Amino acid sequence: MNDVTRTIKDLVIANRILAHQGIVDAYGDISARHPSDRTRFLLARAMSPASVGTADIIEFGLDGARRRHAADPLPGERFIHAAIYEARPDVMAVLHASPEDILAFSVTQTPLQPVIGSVGDMGGRVPVWDIAEKFGDATDLRVSTMERARDVARCLGRHRVVLLRGEGLIVTGRTLNDVVRLAAYVPRNGRTIVATTRLGTFKPLSAGEIAARLAIDPESNAMRRGWEYWARQAGCGDLLSD
Amino acid sequence: MNDVTRTIKDLVIANRILAHQGIVDAYGDISARHPSDRTRFLLARAMSPASVGTADIIEFGLDGARRRHAADPLPGERFIHAAIYEARPDVMAVLHASPEDILAFSVTQTPLQPVIGSVGDMGGRVPVWDIAEKFGDATDLRVSTMERARDVARCLGRHRVVLLRGEGLIVTGRTLNDVVRLAAYVPRNGRTIVATTRLGTFKPLSAGEIAARLAIDPESNAMRRGWEYWARQAGCGDLLSD
Amino acid sequence: MNDVTRTIKDLVIANRILAHQGIVDAYGDISARHPSDRTRFLLARAMSPASVGTADIIEFGLDGARRRHAADPLPGERFIHAAIYEARPDVMAVLHASPEDILAFSVTQTPLQPVIGSVGDMGGRVPVWDIAEKFGDATDLRVSTMERARDVARCLGRHRVVLLRGEGLIVTGRTLNDVVRLAAYVPRNGRTIVATTRLGTFKPLSAGEIAARLAIDPESNAMRRGWEYWARQAGCGDLLSD
Amino acid sequence: MNDVTRTIKDLVIANRILAHQGIVDAYGDISARHPSDRTRFLLARAMSPASVGTADIIEFGLDGARRRHAADPLPGERFIHAAIYEARPDVMAVLHASPEDILAFSVTQTPLQPVIGSVGDMGGRVPVWDIAEKFGDATDLRVSTMERARDVARCLGRHRVVLLRGEGLIVTGRTLNDVVRLAAYVPRNGRTIVATTRLGTFKPLSAGEIAARLAIDPESNAMRRGWEYWARQAGCGDLLSD
Repeated sequence: MNDVTRTIKDLVIANRILAHQGIVDAYGDISARHPSDRTRFLLARAMSPASVGTADIIEFGLDGARRRHAADPLPGERFIHAAIYEARPDVMAVLHASPEDILAFSVTQTPLQPVIGSVGDMGGRVPVWDIAEKFGDATDLRVSTMERARDVARCLGRHRVVLLRGEGLIVTGRTLNDVVRLAAYVPRNGRTIVATTRLGTFKPLSAGEIAARLAIDPESNAMRRGWEYWARQAGCGDLLSD
Repeated sequence: MNDVTRTIKDLVIANRILAHQGIVDAYGDISARHPSDRTRFLLARAMSPASVGTADIIEFGLDGARRRHAADPLPGERFIHAAIYEARPDVMAVLHASPEDILAFSVTQTPLQPVIGSVGDMGGRVPVWDIAEKFGDATDLRVSTMERARDVARCLGRHRVVLLRGEGLIVTGRTLNDVVRLAAYVPRNGRTIVATTRLGTFKPLSAGEIAARLAIDPESNAMRRGWEYWARQAGCGDLLSD
Repeated sequence: MNDVTRTIKDLVIANRILAHQGIVDAYGDISARHPSDRTRFLLARAMSPASVGTADIIEFGLDGARRRHAADPLPGERFIHAAIYEARPDVMAVLHASPEDILAFSVTQTPLQPVIGSVGDMGGRVPVWDIAEKFGDATDLRVSTMERARDVARCLGRHRVVLLRGEGLIVTGRTLNDVVRLAAYVPRNGRTIVATTRLGTFKPLSAGEIAARLAIDPESNAMRRGWEYWARQAGCGDLLSD
Repeated sequence: MNDVTRTIKDLVIANRILAHQGIVDAYGDISARHPSDRTRFLLARAMSPASVGTADIIEFGLDGARRRHAADPLPGERFIHAAIYEARPDVMAVLHASPEDILAFSVTQTPLQPVIGSVGDMGGRVPVWDIAEKFGDATDLRVSTMERARDVARCLGRHRVVLLRGEGLIVTGRTLNDVVRLAAYVPRNGRTIVATTRLGTFKPLSAGEIAARLAIDPESNAMRRGWEYWARQAGCGDLLSD
């Protein structure tokens, strides 16, 4: 199987896992950079992630325009993905979603920092992007233009995750599995912080611990363990083999 | 298919989605205004929403009296729906339910205001109706007469949502999907507010943002995305087609 | 069908509903007074409620001794049921369970009082029984003798519900459905109180409202609606008919 | 059936129950000491617990080296199990997992003490092991060497449970059922403590009550009740019989 066929299958798996894990519901979108053309990325048409199949995947350019594969309707969120691939050559996969248990961190002053080892590779700082800062207080909060999306990418900077005020978060990664695994545990980290506020002050991961977690190969057996399990749970284990 | 047949099917879908999403349990009731006779509305007989079928739908007048289709028993909640259609010509669908995560807002002083974009179209203010204010402190809390129901409608005013103290909430909308989508996210907004109280002060949506969300067509593709997905999840995807 | 056969079927349904609703897990026990002999009651052998069938039901006397139907092992909790039927002629059904969201109320000073209408018939006061008060601080917390059980019944008094410190609660009722319905909503009332502590002071139901809720016939259509629905959800709808 | 065959089947059941109960997800590992050779223990290869079968079980020595049965890859967590069996001759089963609702206790100062009777046999004190104390603040938090594991065993001491800062917990027991039952209720105890902080000060179990709970035979009918029920729920009831 050629690379892009494999990537498309993996993108379908990622959609299904995220839906089954409750990281996305009817909304939420994950993309992968094209494996042989770095100026393109793959993203499903506007539809619920749980129903995405290989025929729903569209190829986009870094300007957010459709390059290949006709499927309707185009997702309004394509600009977010485009702007991040444009700004961050190291990023190979992007998730935009609204998992409930990070929303409170997007509208308050408490930073979403890692307290559990499994999200150590989230990095020590998660910036919050507030659309009102640059685009005023009368928007519909949606990142629906390249201009807005580039401002999100600017706020993301060199970090792995950025919160969108009142909307959700963006998770970037080195591989699709890298994004899915981190996204699966970030809400748990949020819930743990909320619980700790009842129990005293908490000890977050240290800078050294964060660096050590980031140094783990995201495709190592230990980090891949969830992928196959979750794919089977989500009912798409057949897509795992070539 | 004529309009009313389509509306009845959609009303069955709405019942099933709400049950599957946990917005209603054994209790809770959703109605739609009759598509060709504005003086009537459609509502299921008194039964658990998850089991509602097309034969269970009854046609009522704006006084809460049955006009067409025999099915027993009549729901005590029909007056709530009647009074709101009577008072609000712009309302085409009404939900009365007790999703758990809004109950605390109905018995405390903290207003249920939008902090997440997906409920921006809830409006900036959600009034609370306390049955004791007008009907004394010895009622069974149920809105079981037109007199009580009209007082609820008065409290709702021009808003989209009203909380009933100790009982639940009413969500109104321009379409059935409009009500179901908003109802699906209102409890999430409530949980997010509760979580924020642990993390600092929160930033709610601004008046301009609320207006921008309300300006989105409730039947646009972006707002309809949940309907089909949730209907299939709820096992009634067959009712989607004519 | 004679009365006792119907009661046994209903007791099986009650076990299955409570398991499916998560009110009981591997532990928890519900009984019904014998419909034609007030000195006896029916309770399953020691087993997980989700698996209880009609052949598992044992007839006990008000001393907790087995009177009829051999099934092993005898449940250690039979004394709780016996002592309550002995002390309270008005009680026709008893549940002993550990739903998680009432446990915090059993070990703190905050009373579990009704804030939502659906548990208005719980009554205005729920006493807490602490085994250490009478039996010292070196018990295993289990109500495993008639002496302990009679002390629980004394603490219950004329109330409908009593909390057992660190262990759970007992719910009494006029019918099996009366107990199941109330038990299904008491944890929700607990969660709502916990949420309200973040949002300000809460307004509980008034004495008059509680009296009005208690005056509703527990076998009226409005109060029976959950029973059939939950039985079908729990996979024992076939036991509903004679 | 010989003892080791039975133990292997029980270990598979334990894996499946823990996965079905949500105590483990893609990660988490449970072992049993070899029934006829106290210098060995049984543990699955590195894989998701929900998928473990009898062919996945490997025999290890107390140094963490594989002794018997080839299956890949070896779990990095084998050292944890080895060090505990080495240090604690009384321990016959060990679980290492990350149930979410104990994580907050691993990063704050509030001790995880028993407030509900069902975890009285957890003991009165649960120490917290912080990898940074001995191994510095630049580790990846994983207990991946015998040296680290022996330090965990030292911290566990004579207790039954030890928390690992930011990572999870270890539960030890006299039998597999003893570990699984306790692990099923420890998170509930954690959630109850968190809830109590909103309701006042809480009363934990007394030393005498803890001793009384520890004195209950972990293989008595009352303590075994969950095992069969949970095994059937987890879909591996067929493994219960010889």
